[in-house]
Amino acid sequence: MVRANPERRRALLDASIEVLARDGARGLTFRAVDGEAAVPAGTASNYFANRDDLLVQVGHRYYERLIPDAEVLARGRAPQTRDSMIDVMTEVVERVARFRTGYLAILELRLEATRRPALQSLLTDRVRTDLDLNIANYRASGLPDGENTVVLLYFALNWLILDRLTLPDLFDEQRTAELVRTAVERMIVEPV
Amino acid sequence: MVRANPERRRALLDASIEVLARDGARGLTFRAVDGEAAVPAGTASNYFANRDDLLVQVGHRYYERLIPDAEVLARGRAPQTRDSMIDVMTEVVERVARFRTGYLAILELRLEATRRPALQSLLTDRVRTDLDLNIANYRASGLPDGENTVVLLYFALNWLILDRLTLPDLFDEQRTAELVRTAVERMIVEPV
Repeated sequence: MVRANPERRRALLDASIEVLARDGARGLTFRAVDGEAAVPAGTASNYFANRDDLLVQVGHRYYERLIPDAEVLARGRAPQTRDSMIDVMTEVVERVARFRTGYLAILELRLEATRRPALQSLLTDRVRTDLDLNIANYRASGLPDGENTVVLLYFALNWLILDRLTLPDLFDEQRTAELVRTAVERMIVEPV
Repeated sequence: MVRANPERRRALLDASIEVLARDGARGLTFRAVDGEAAVPAGTASNYFANRDDLLVQVGHRYYERLIPDAEVLARGRAPQTRDSMIDVMTEVVERVARFRTGYLAILELRLEATRRPALQSLLTDRVRTDLDLNIANYRASGLPDGENTVVLLYFALNWLILDRLTLPDLFDEQRTAELVRTAVERMIVEPV
């Protein structure tokens, strides 16, 4: 039987994110989640049918926690210049990188997805949905081209965040900011 | 005492890559490596001082195995046009993605590096060396700009490979090839 107290469920998923970031996918057991969430042993197993279910729910929770506030959302949908797009992308990179354990957890899920078809399918759908939303927003911005620009920025900025979180000495903060700016400048092709 | 039969040592490192890709960083034990390499129990522990040492050596081995043959190396150092650079980058992406278990293993190492300073330091040095070499090659190619182009291509193409290996349904082969081409076209700014 799967329990349904939504607040408790979210707390267990947030605890799972911390466990994944700290101990890796193999460290994610119901027992470890209970410990991290400081709930009685056996709680997590009442909320998730099995480990696959837990992993899939963690994936959903990650994306849920990254939804920005209304003001940021509105700014992302407004008309843009290339310069204002640099600010929008800088905010996105900072928001994603600030949720450090979430990003490390989702990378663990990516690797785990090579072994678990249900998780691979969920993550594929989430990334595609996210890209489609960003492509729609980008097209509404009035800037030239759409799909290629968004996908290439998604590629470049994701690896930039990965470097920043896993090898923080590779690029300092100033260089990272400069690379975000340059990525946007190069990806957005001004109309001739 | 650390043993020194180089062929055996390489076989143990190659076995470690397979274990990492299949079972994740937590699954990498001396016992698992011995099993994967089909050598007597206790062999790996004779070759590596401890698990940290093993992880660092695996990092070296990954880069060693990716060194292309002399012909490909020479092509990478020759003068380039933007079009020929598309071929060079397509070859790199295919070479890296073909060594699937190596790439998954190095991602496991990236995540493990957040917990192990020695590994983080090794990987930072290796990536920086690699980038510096690529920047030098790029400058010798006669194409405009250097550092930003190389770093942004490194970002974008790495995440493209990560998507291809962890979420293979996200972009099909044709779309992936097109994205490599577009990445090169946008990153290399033609002189005005």
